[in-house]
Amino acid sequence: MPIYVVGHKIPDSDSICSAIALAHLKNQIGEPAVATRLGELSPETQYILDKFGFETPEYKTSYAGEKIFIVDHSEVGQAPDDVADATIVGIVDHHKLGDLTTSTPLECWIRPVGCSNTIIKQMYDFYGIEIPKNVAGVMLCAILSDTVIFKSPTCTPVDKAAVEDLARLAGVDDIVALGMEMFKVKSAVEGTPVRDLVKRDFKDFDMNGHKVGVGQLEVIDLAVFDSIKDDLQADIAALKEEGGRHSVLLLLTDIMREGSEMLVVSDSADLTERAYGKPTTDGKVWLEGVLSRKKQVIPSLQDAFK
Amino acid sequence: MPIYVVGHKIPDSDSICSAIALAHLKNQIGEPAVATRLGELSPETQYILDKFGFETPEYKTSYAGEKIFIVDHSEVGQAPDDVADATIVGIVDHHKLGDLTTSTPLECWIRPVGCSNTIIKQMYDFYGIEIPKNVAGVMLCAILSDTVIFKSPTCTPVDKAAVEDLARLAGVDDIVALGMEMFKVKSAVEGTPVRDLVKRDFKDFDMNGHKVGVGQLEVIDLAVFDSIKDDLQADIAALKEEGGRHSVLLLLTDIMREGSEMLVVSDSADLTERAYGKPTTDGKVWLEGVLSRKKQVIPSLQDAFK
Repeated sequence: MPIYVVGHKIPDSDSICSAIALAHLKNQIGEPAVATRLGELSPETQYILDKFGFETPEYKTSYAGEKIFIVDHSEVGQAPDDVADATIVGIVDHHKLGDLTTSTPLECWIRPVGCSNTIIKQMYDFYGIEIPKNVAGVMLCAILSDTVIFKSPTCTPVDKAAVEDLARLAGVDDIVALGMEMFKVKSAVEGTPVRDLVKRDFKDFDMNGHKVGVGQLEVIDLAVFDSIKDDLQADIAALKEEGGRHSVLLLLTDIMREGSEMLVVSDSADLTERAYGKPTTDGKVWLEGVLSRKKQVIPSLQDAFK
Repeated sequence: MPIYVVGHKIPDSDSICSAIALAHLKNQIGEPAVATRLGELSPETQYILDKFGFETPEYKTSYAGEKIFIVDHSEVGQAPDDVADATIVGIVDHHKLGDLTTSTPLECWIRPVGCSNTIIKQMYDFYGIEIPKNVAGVMLCAILSDTVIFKSPTCTPVDKAAVEDLARLAGVDDIVALGMEMFKVKSAVEGTPVRDLVKRDFKDFDMNGHKVGVGQLEVIDLAVFDSIKDDLQADIAALKEEGGRHSVLLLLTDIMREGSEMLVVSDSADLTERAYGKPTTDGKVWLEGVLSRKKQVIPSLQDAFK
C-alpha cells in the first residue's frame, strides 16, 4: 500500500511540486509513495511541470483507509474530505499549525521558512539522497513562486540557500529570469473566467468561529485587473453568500510595486481598519508592502476576530 | 526575551530532560532559552538530575506574552493553562498530533520514535553542535526510560543509535545497568501517598468528547503493588468523579514480565472488551505484552470511543 503525498485543496505550485518531490524522496528510501492532488493545476504550475517534463499528478479526492503524507498545510479544511478515515503518516509544512490531529504518532517537518520545498530539500539532505535534475527544477520553481523571487517577507536565508543548491542541480543559470517567466504566466488573467481567478489561490480559514475566505492573485502589473475589477468584486460578494462566509478578501498583489490591493466584502464594515489600521473604501484598500497572505494578512486578521 | 522550553503537565523524565537538552542547544545557536517545568519531579527524574549534576528547572505555570517551545506533547490539555496567550515557536514530540494550533508559523520536529530526546539528538546533529557530557547523560536516561530499556514497542533503531552515541558522549559503559538503576528508583512506591502514585505519570485525553485519564506506573516487579492495590482502585474511582471523567485507567506495568495489569473504572462496563478484546474482572485486566501507553493502549482506546 503506497503512501499518497497530497497538498491542499485548490493546489498551488508548492503543493503540487512538494507532492512530486517528496514522493520521489520516499520512493528512494524504500517507502513506496505516489504524488496526488485535490484540484486543478494553475497555469503557473502547468508551466512548471511542462518545463521540467512531469506528468500531472493523479487527481484523487478519497483516501479512506489509505496512508497519506500531507504537504503544505495542517488544516482539516484544506485536507481531503475523508481525512479522518485516513492515516496521516506525516506532514511537511511552513504555515501556522492547523487543526489536523492524528490517533497515532507521525513525522512532522514544519519550519518557519518560505516554502515547503525548502524543507523537503532539508529532508533530501538528511537522508543523503541526491535530487535529480528535473525534481530540483520543480522544487526551485516552487520556492521562487512562494517567496515571490525572494521579495516576500516569508523568505529566509534557508530558502535562498536551498534555491542556490537546487539551481545548480537543475542547471538553471538565471534564477530571476526563471522567476519572472513564471510570474508572467501567472499574470495572464485575460480570458479566464472570473470565478476561476478568485478561486485560483483561495483558502478558507476558521477565525474564532467565523468562516473567512482569502484569495490572492500575484501579478507583475495590477493594470491587468483594470477591466475586470468590478466583476471580481461582484464575484467575491457572491462567493461570500454561497459559502455562508463572514468575509471574503481578495488580494491583488503587485510583485514589482511590492504591495497589494485588497478587495473586501465582510459582515464587519471596519474589518480592515481593525486588522490593518486602514479603512475599506468602495470595497477596496491598498496595503503597501504586503506580499504575503500568510505572514502579513492572516495573523492580523485572526487578531481582529479575537 | 528568552524562549521557555517546557514539557507537559505532570512531567516525566523525557519532558524535563528534553527541556534541559533543547534549552542548551538553543543557547548554543544564539537563541536564549530557559528550561522550565509545569509540575513536580518524579523520583526517577530527580535521580537523573542528581546523577548528572543538574539543578531542577524553574517551576513556571504562566506564559502569557512569552515565547514557548513545547516538548514531548502537542495537546492543549497538557500545555500551560494560558498557552493561548503565549507564542508557540516550536514543538518537539513523538506522540500523535494533538490539538495545539498557532496563529504564526513555527518549527515542529515530530517523529514516530521512542523518545523526544532522540529527536533532540537529531537536532544537535543538524546544527552541528557538540553535546556536553552531562547533557548527553540526561538525554540518554530519558531515552532508556521512555523505551523501557529498548523493550517498548515504541523503541526504534533511531532510538538505539542515539543511545549508543549518547552513552559514548556521557561516558556510560553499561547502559542496561544504568537503566535498571533508574527503574529501581521508579519501583520504590512504598511510603508514597496513593494519589501521588496515581498522578505520577497521568494524562487526560479527549476521546470523542469524553474525558479519559490514563496513568502508568512502571516497576521491576508488580508485587510492590500487592498491599496497596485496593487503595489504588479506590483512588482512581475518586479521581474519575472529581474530574468528571468518563473513565480512569491505571496501567501497572511489569517491565521484566513485559505486560501490564490495568486497573479500570469506567462508565462503559465493556470498555476493555471493546478496546483490547479482554473483559474487566473485579476492576482489573491483564494485558500481556503491553508496555506502551502511547502505542498499545491509547490508539485502541480511541477507536473504542468512535
